[in-house]
Amino acid sequence: MSGPASVAVVGATGYAGLELARLLLRHPHVQKPTFYLRNGDAGIRCLSELFPQFRGWGEAPCKPLSATAIAESGADVVFLSTPHEASLALVPALFAANPRLRIVDLSAAFRFREPHTFAKWYTEVPTQKPTDCQAVYGLPELYEDSLGKAQLVANPGCYSTSVILGLRPLIQAGWINRARGIVCDCKSGVSGAGKEPKRETHFVEINENARAYGVFSHRHTPEISEHAQLALRDFVFTTHLIPVERGILSTLYVWLDAPRDAHEIEALYRSFYAQRSLMRILPAGSLPELQHVRHTNFCDIGFALDPSGERLVIVSALDNLGKGAAGQAVQNMNVMRGYPQTAGLL
Amino acid sequence: MSGPASVAVVGATGYAGLELARLLLRHPHVQKPTFYLRNGDAGIRCLSELFPQFRGWGEAPCKPLSATAIAESGADVVFLSTPHEASLALVPALFAANPRLRIVDLSAAFRFREPHTFAKWYTEVPTQKPTDCQAVYGLPELYEDSLGKAQLVANPGCYSTSVILGLRPLIQAGWINRARGIVCDCKSGVSGAGKEPKRETHFVEINENARAYGVFSHRHTPEISEHAQLALRDFVFTTHLIPVERGILSTLYVWLDAPRDAHEIEALYRSFYAQRSLMRILPAGSLPELQHVRHTNFCDIGFALDPSGERLVIVSALDNLGKGAAGQAVQNMNVMRGYPQTAGLL
Amino acid sequence: MSGPASVAVVGATGYAGLELARLLLRHPHVQKPTFYLRNGDAGIRCLSELFPQFRGWGEAPCKPLSATAIAESGADVVFLSTPHEASLALVPALFAANPRLRIVDLSAAFRFREPHTFAKWYTEVPTQKPTDCQAVYGLPELYEDSLGKAQLVANPGCYSTSVILGLRPLIQAGWINRARGIVCDCKSGVSGAGKEPKRETHFVEINENARAYGVFSHRHTPEISEHAQLALRDFVFTTHLIPVERGILSTLYVWLDAPRDAHEIEALYRSFYAQRSLMRILPAGSLPELQHVRHTNFCDIGFALDPSGERLVIVSALDNLGKGAAGQAVQNMNVMRGYPQTAGLL
Amino acid sequence: MSGPASVAVVGATGYAGLELARLLLRHPHVQKPTFYLRNGDAGIRCLSELFPQFRGWGEAPCKPLSATAIAESGADVVFLSTPHEASLALVPALFAANPRLRIVDLSAAFRFREPHTFAKWYTEVPTQKPTDCQAVYGLPELYEDSLGKAQLVANPGCYSTSVILGLRPLIQAGWINRARGIVCDCKSGVSGAGKEPKRETHFVEINENARAYGVFSHRHTPEISEHAQLALRDFVFTTHLIPVERGILSTLYVWLDAPRDAHEIEALYRSFYAQRSLMRILPAGSLPELQHVRHTNFCDIGFALDPSGERLVIVSALDNLGKGAAGQAVQNMNVMRGYPQTAGLL
Repeated sequence: MSGPASVAVVGATGYAGLELARLLLRHPHVQKPTFYLRNGDAGIRCLSELFPQFRGWGEAPCKPLSATAIAESGADVVFLSTPHEASLALVPALFAANPRLRIVDLSAAFRFREPHTFAKWYTEVPTQKPTDCQAVYGLPELYEDSLGKAQLVANPGCYSTSVILGLRPLIQAGWINRARGIVCDCKSGVSGAGKEPKRETHFVEINENARAYGVFSHRHTPEISEHAQLALRDFVFTTHLIPVERGILSTLYVWLDAPRDAHEIEALYRSFYAQRSLMRILPAGSLPELQHVRHTNFCDIGFALDPSGERLVIVSALDNLGKGAAGQAVQNMNVMRGYPQTAGLL
Repeated sequence: MSGPASVAVVGATGYAGLELARLLLRHPHVQKPTFYLRNGDAGIRCLSELFPQFRGWGEAPCKPLSATAIAESGADVVFLSTPHEASLALVPALFAANPRLRIVDLSAAFRFREPHTFAKWYTEVPTQKPTDCQAVYGLPELYEDSLGKAQLVANPGCYSTSVILGLRPLIQAGWINRARGIVCDCKSGVSGAGKEPKRETHFVEINENARAYGVFSHRHTPEISEHAQLALRDFVFTTHLIPVERGILSTLYVWLDAPRDAHEIEALYRSFYAQRSLMRILPAGSLPELQHVRHTNFCDIGFALDPSGERLVIVSALDNLGKGAAGQAVQNMNVMRGYPQTAGLL
Repeated sequence: MSGPASVAVVGATGYAGLELARLLLRHPHVQKPTFYLRNGDAGIRCLSELFPQFRGWGEAPCKPLSATAIAESGADVVFLSTPHEASLALVPALFAANPRLRIVDLSAAFRFREPHTFAKWYTEVPTQKPTDCQAVYGLPELYEDSLGKAQLVANPGCYSTSVILGLRPLIQAGWINRARGIVCDCKSGVSGAGKEPKRETHFVEINENARAYGVFSHRHTPEISEHAQLALRDFVFTTHLIPVERGILSTLYVWLDAPRDAHEIEALYRSFYAQRSLMRILPAGSLPELQHVRHTNFCDIGFALDPSGERLVIVSALDNLGKGAAGQAVQNMNVMRGYPQTAGLL
Repeated sequence: MSGPASVAVVGATGYAGLELARLLLRHPHVQKPTFYLRNGDAGIRCLSELFPQFRGWGEAPCKPLSATAIAESGADVVFLSTPHEASLALVPALFAANPRLRIVDLSAAFRFREPHTFAKWYTEVPTQKPTDCQAVYGLPELYEDSLGKAQLVANPGCYSTSVILGLRPLIQAGWINRARGIVCDCKSGVSGAGKEPKRETHFVEINENARAYGVFSHRHTPEISEHAQLALRDFVFTTHLIPVERGILSTLYVWLDAPRDAHEIEALYRSFYAQRSLMRILPAGSLPELQHVRHTNFCDIGFALDPSGERLVIVSALDNLGKGAAGQAVQNMNVMRGYPQTAGLL
């Protein structure tokens, strides 16, 4: 286990940034973090000017963004809570300024093995990802060993985390009848849509409403495909906005290759996630609820099996700002630095 | 078209009853309705004592429940907004008192062709449904002709209406690849869970929460099977509570038998529901939202087709108290009495 | 009573406009209304393109705004659901094009007797209100006679309506001890803040939140002063945003000039609002709730009196889009045209 | 500062109990607490059976309630999260079993100096409070010294805390014109109404609703009178339910004895609450919001002064489960044990 970490955060002005600040300020192994703000927040000198929530206990310093300043600050770990365009530029600049930095990027910029995947789903004009910035996909339940040594970690998407963690044990066990379809029906709170005021996030448009969006085109699709190990044509992934602030509830539908009983299913999940302290497998018959995971960094997984033992519904729940974003970023830092995975997260 | 209807309502003390009262009080062909209350609401003499909303405009009379009184009141149509046990007893009693009555029952008591289906899903001890009370399933978009002559109408469940209307055109066209699964993922507002205070409907348990319930055991399953013409093992139907008051959003997943394009799909639905004024088929690329159907009696249907043309997501939205309960009950009365189907419903 | 009204609506793109459209489309004495849109909505030809809610039943025509076109269309009544700057320009233009038009303006442009009041509260640079556009303040419960003959009606603010209707009977009776303070604490839903996306109306900023705003500076203050007949220094008026879509609940605190009993208070209100069909005075001991007035055009008033008979709390509730805006605008049209005041509003 | 505390909690099955458990489990000076449950929860052996939120990190033991067992357990501090009737019986029983115990009672049982005050507001039949159980009122910002030595602490009501902390500086300074009225208009989230399912806390009755309740009869009135040092006839205190889960926003209206400027007001509050780490005085011109205090133990206070300097509106915000209940209980323990007041609360 390394000593205390000196930490820099870039761009903590959105909802994930707010949550990240909250977690880092309370983290037992993090020295008082410094926040670097991009243009437009130039005059701000401390966190509570951005977020009155921090008044009286979280008065961390805010500075203008500068790769050089970060490199020279002695930071061990840098979190990028920035749009993917900004991350694409910042990562090489930070490594150029200090090749020993370790970076956790919350954007999608470095999530894909193949540059063309990013280009296809995220950009109008295909761009070349810098080839010397190979990232590890930041899902510690799957990739702990690589993360321990990673210099650049691509923090997963919130939906992706929920779906991949829900499906991976079954897929790896080969228990799914792939000739039938896999359906991933996800419901999300509104903080995932970002802080920028838009018509779609106006209170009156969300309240007493629910709707599907991004069907067959959601950008988290290729992450799921890659890390749940599913061909794009083998699953359907839909996302819905519901009137809650935070949380993702994913209902995952699979047909099994052969009849199984509930104990087998539960045992598979318990064994797959043994020692994974932020995964909670519910006993057969219980299903997760958003209220049990919001404001936490847990991913709860439960399931229902039909009497014939062939149709299986898995429900996966997490807080999109916790295990779905900032909490997972901190968990990744914990792995990178050799702290206990749950440090600062319970 | 018949003349104005004299109407009696039994048991209008829940949320569906409130909505039914509202619709009937404004209906152009309904004479001032009379409300018959069961035990426990004995002292109540007018609607606004039950629901202050009706003060000043909806002061309809309330009387103690009596099959004889209803029969002698000259009522043409009786609505039963009662639990299924009560409806099971009331229907034969009402027909005994006046064989020419026409009844719309909002409960599940008479929804099934086979008595054992009701017994299996709704009762602990199998009961015999009275054999002389054959009901027509009250989905006017499918069964208009039979409903026109029906004496007893079994008003469908809210989820069932949403799912059946969403799937039936595809199924009837034979376009679904049944070797793969059909998934029906439904999200519902809380008024569908009834007015009785329960731990699960406490504000604090619903707010900022979402959860699945009744997976593989929801009582609306056999209705869907029967009227969407699907074997129980061919589909999965799950229901979720989300923090809205009213509305059901059903996301329906099918694999098509062959690649099709969006125009074909849209044309199929438009043709199937031609002249069905309470069905709104959205143009390809638009998806329904709860906010466009709440406080209405419409069922909105839209869809998204994946580029390969084989995976299809249909979204069906309605107000669980409108087209999912009271609105549909009024629509059934309109059909039974020969009024325009939308009378009192726009 | 006049014959059916030909109606034009200008600028129905906000939440009050949506409600106004809904009411006019169902109004028994209104011929199919025409909607005139301002720049930016140029291509829109029918209402459902603006508001999918209207699909299938409210396909009213939309046209580009033109005072001449409105004048030549034969419209009897024009509703302006426009910002005050736009109304200031439109009213003289419309009267110039057709001096016999009758106009209901939902903005604040013509609400004040003295031009400098408007200038002081609404403009940076004091402007001169056109002197030939004297409006009647559109509160039919107080000014019915003048409204019957008015050519230009200034529809009141939502908070103002709620507070004035709650206080006026007591003030007119002279029962208030003015040496002590009058406090008006108002809670409002978010639709009153307009449809334009802003940081303050983002779902995440409203949900699970409540806050006061505009204390000592809210623009509805001078309306209340003028029509509740209170000097500005005699009352405090505060407004709060709470996480509901629609509704205003005003809690009004007065000290009485002498001890009174609850029957006197109730009798005063009942007598003051006798024959006022959209005012509902609750029996002593009952207090209004938003849920009983939302989606209605009622203003409900109830009160609690302390045992000593000197401290009185009046609660006034209405729907800010109903009696607080669009409903009241329609009520004003009803008065102007000699229709029953409740026509289209129950 | 004492060493680590051994802690027992009685009756942690409601929302305040849940919050108390959460705080104690994370408290740096509390050894793993034990929870004693009353009848009806007999079979429960650990917290997560009561609250699935605690799965995986908060598996504290639950035992059947027994005063003897608590006394013999070596507990230093006992929290009573029980109804007042239960607390009335438990406190003497606990002291009888172990006279050195220190107790924080979250109920109202011991909040009043005079037994008849409790009897008048809380009981039908006046009861005698045990005379040997004198409690200190648990508002550390006012009574820190007495609390340091107290054996029995009566934790204040949530509304009372909010109002007393908001008014006390002004009252103690003598700046209020008492000849005019003081108005306390409080808005509360629903968790304050308890976890027991009731018609009034059904989601559908709260959502999109707001209402006043308990006007002139709310049980927190005498606490406010006693500790804000106001005669009952000098203020009006009303409470409102709004559709949020947690939080109290109190808008307090006073007329000053003489014109003052904003700096004086701000300085008064800052000076009164100097060194009080859980009080946050906002700069003049800023007003508190629920979202900045929910899930915290802060009480935020801000104000607006009218230009004449005589009418003052103070806004006080806190989390009814935090500073309004469980957080304050923990703060009281901190004072009693000599820990930093904010220990476990930031």
